[in-house]
Amino acid sequence: MSGKAQIGVTGLAVMGSNLARNFARNGFTVAVHNRTAAKTRALVEEFGDEGTFVPTESAEDFVAALERPRRLVVMVKAGDPTDAVIREFAPLLEPGDVVIDGGNAHFEDTRRRERDMRELGIHFVGTGISGGEEGALHGPSIMPGGSAESYASLGPLLEKIAAKAKDGTPCVTHIGPDGAGHFVKMVHNGIEYADMQLIAEAYHLLRAVAGYSPERISRTFRSWNTGRLDSYLIEITAEVLAHIDDATEEPFVDVVADEAEQKGTGRWTVQIALDLGVPVSGIAEAVFARSVSGHTDLRQASRGLPGPVASPLDDAEAAAFADRVEQALYASKLVSYTQGFHQIRAGSEAYGWDIDLGAVASIWRSGCIIRAAFLDRIRAAYDAAPGLVSLLSDKGFTEEIGAAQDDWRAVVAAAAQRGVPTPGFSASLAYYDALRAERLPAALTQGQRDFFGAHTYRRTDREGSFHTLWGGDRSEVRTG
Amino acid sequence: MSGKAQIGVTGLAVMGSNLARNFARNGFTVAVHNRTAAKTRALVEEFGDEGTFVPTESAEDFVAALERPRRLVVMVKAGDPTDAVIREFAPLLEPGDVVIDGGNAHFEDTRRRERDMRELGIHFVGTGISGGEEGALHGPSIMPGGSAESYASLGPLLEKIAAKAKDGTPCVTHIGPDGAGHFVKMVHNGIEYADMQLIAEAYHLLRAVAGYSPERISRTFRSWNTGRLDSYLIEITAEVLAHIDDATEEPFVDVVADEAEQKGTGRWTVQIALDLGVPVSGIAEAVFARSVSGHTDLRQASRGLPGPVASPLDDAEAAAFADRVEQALYASKLVSYTQGFHQIRAGSEAYGWDIDLGAVASIWRSGCIIRAAFLDRIRAAYDAAPGLVSLLSDKGFTEEIGAAQDDWRAVVAAAAQRGVPTPGFSASLAYYDALRAERLPAALTQGQRDFFGAHTYRRTDREGSFHTLWGGDRSEVRTG
Repeated sequence: MSGKAQIGVTGLAVMGSNLARNFARNGFTVAVHNRTAAKTRALVEEFGDEGTFVPTESAEDFVAALERPRRLVVMVKAGDPTDAVIREFAPLLEPGDVVIDGGNAHFEDTRRRERDMRELGIHFVGTGISGGEEGALHGPSIMPGGSAESYASLGPLLEKIAAKAKDGTPCVTHIGPDGAGHFVKMVHNGIEYADMQLIAEAYHLLRAVAGYSPERISRTFRSWNTGRLDSYLIEITAEVLAHIDDATEEPFVDVVADEAEQKGTGRWTVQIALDLGVPVSGIAEAVFARSVSGHTDLRQASRGLPGPVASPLDDAEAAAFADRVEQALYASKLVSYTQGFHQIRAGSEAYGWDIDLGAVASIWRSGCIIRAAFLDRIRAAYDAAPGLVSLLSDKGFTEEIGAAQDDWRAVVAAAAQRGVPTPGFSASLAYYDALRAERLPAALTQGQRDFFGAHTYRRTDREGSFHTLWGGDRSEVRTG
Repeated sequence: MSGKAQIGVTGLAVMGSNLARNFARNGFTVAVHNRTAAKTRALVEEFGDEGTFVPTESAEDFVAALERPRRLVVMVKAGDPTDAVIREFAPLLEPGDVVIDGGNAHFEDTRRRERDMRELGIHFVGTGISGGEEGALHGPSIMPGGSAESYASLGPLLEKIAAKAKDGTPCVTHIGPDGAGHFVKMVHNGIEYADMQLIAEAYHLLRAVAGYSPERISRTFRSWNTGRLDSYLIEITAEVLAHIDDATEEPFVDVVADEAEQKGTGRWTVQIALDLGVPVSGIAEAVFARSVSGHTDLRQASRGLPGPVASPLDDAEAAAFADRVEQALYASKLVSYTQGFHQIRAGSEAYGWDIDLGAVASIWRSGCIIRAAFLDRIRAAYDAAPGLVSLLSDKGFTEEIGAAQDDWRAVVAAAAQRGVPTPGFSASLAYYDALRAERLPAALTQGQRDFFGAHTYRRTDREGSFHTLWGGDRSEVRTG
């Protein structure tokens, strides 16, 4: 049984098992390994007929089962467990072997690991995998980083198991060197947070302002899902909202505790965006919205805060309002993607990754959580103009958001007046209005900074840095 | 000249010089030292008659000039320069000596340095100092961390040189162990960012919606400064807006480039808040607003984005609108402080600092950039209820924000309708509305997470974690 498997998977929790099965189902011989061998045996016992598995018990057996150069996929928890597995396997590997980390690692960790492994001549491929458990089994969207050489060896296998876009393109591409894959996966998740928050706000508005029931909102989302909002998240939102809880016969959404949890990639996205100087307000508000929801003490203490009095909408007004919410949701979503792609562009520049933004949009079209019809448009926009500074400046998107803006403004205004929190819609609109502003009040901010901290300012009419002697005769001195 | 100086200052750029002069003016003998001795000589030459300075040229002389236990204030750039100075001085010091870092260090660096120095028996006191150059000279707000023992030795000196609140209280207190002082200074700066952004939005609204000139807005701010918004930042805003540029005879604010810069503490505040799970949306939007303003390429590319058409206000409407902006500014400011104090409370709990929030409000009442009449109220709120979960749930603040909310909502709605970006006002209002919401759409978010990632959810009607078999018969299983 030595050296026959084309690929190996170690770490057989649900994601790892499903990925191994996906490889096997696609005709590859898959060596499988787990820290506790019982899981390995269970996998082969239950799914052995799906393809050719090579169960192994020790790390040595696992490595020996792989054809050379070896390809090993590590599917363990991000952080210390990943380092532990690497420490275990590194001495058993040889130059040219490829280690694929399919967990949600922080891209800085991936950069460190890639550097360390490169010194041993081993390719380390930090790989984003999106699509959840089902995606791993039936075809995820795959975002591998690492060397171009590793992709030459690995790419054909990944292209087989990846989701396929409607035009047949596999949803995998070589993102770029070292941590580029995990970086792009991180931003994917940040966009996912924003997308989910915007959908939550749309739901909240339809419920609280239009007075719709969850069932009616489900139908509304289902109809939106046939248009430009066509996406996996809108589809499952309709499913969740239509679901009735067995125990209470109430709408499921009303029996779920309204405290959203998070696992960290949204937070990372915002933290890294801050380091890169990229405004990702839509993603940040989504992360904050989850944390507000979880602060039960704060919420309990705030129950007495006064809200507005607003009369309910009648049926015709409600229907018109629902249409406006669709416009606001689309426009805000466009802003979230604009911010996310800006972050990828900035990361690519900062780390020298040379990421093809059109290719990123292309591989998100299927398999991943944020898959959406709309990504075809983003791909087209970047393919037509790879240097596009902002998605919003693509002609088609400019036109659409221009057409949506009146309704978008009306929805944000109504939310403010009626006391429905729409941090995502509002932040997106503020970003839009800041970007298009001829002059921003940042000039005042710079004036204040110069006043209290002598931080200097630049002028609109000539080059250089200047400082006004605020404590003196208020004349201006040139400082640089 | 050996062992006579009660305090020493090394690093004689403007902040260090002014702090040394402040000590000398208050009757202390001050040893002064700088990497290049010319600065030391220049200080003593120019300001020697203000008090008793002991100029020193070498690190050894500097240390020898200090009475024991020694107190040395390090006023060099945060980061590597601070470590370099510590490395230079540590071998010259003795157990019981106190090293004060008065720079804007990251509190995690301060924690590390404190730990390292503690092993040598040396007290390391990371100290926030706010008030800019003028504050350093005439009385800053001082936020020392480090051991309680070090404060016993250092406190009396700091209390002398600190700003005094109107009731005579010195604006310094022992914040808490190790990095507590720098942490609180970081959040101070975060609040400062938010405050400045809210003022900038108020200015923008008065200019763009009410049609006021900078000079008229200056008068408006001056009148606000006599009420509950009475604060240093409002005061200097009025000054900046009244200033006419000599060269062009235009309002100064119109000739300053509208690209706001930042030095990092605002960004840190948000990054740490994300780690602590504290929603600081007002501070985040302020940081993002500065970065949007600086993306000239993005702004240039976005000039074609369509905006709304809105008719100008007449005089009476404009005056009424200006009053509403005051309400919106006050309410939003209250939210920023609520978020900032939440972060301090969370940091205090996470790091075991036992910070007295009332004392923090107290020492911000004078000397620092965010000094404001309103901090007396915050101090009183925390003194009355040290365990207060949220500033907004203080009865007085609840009433005020309740009275402000209609106008606040109208201003946010008008900004959305009229295309003026007000990310800070909007984020603050959304936070307010989220906190007081009976139910948040976070329940839908949890439902989605369970659908695509089997992340489970909790229920409102019983304990435990649950998962719905979305891909199967949609029955519910208990998972924990």
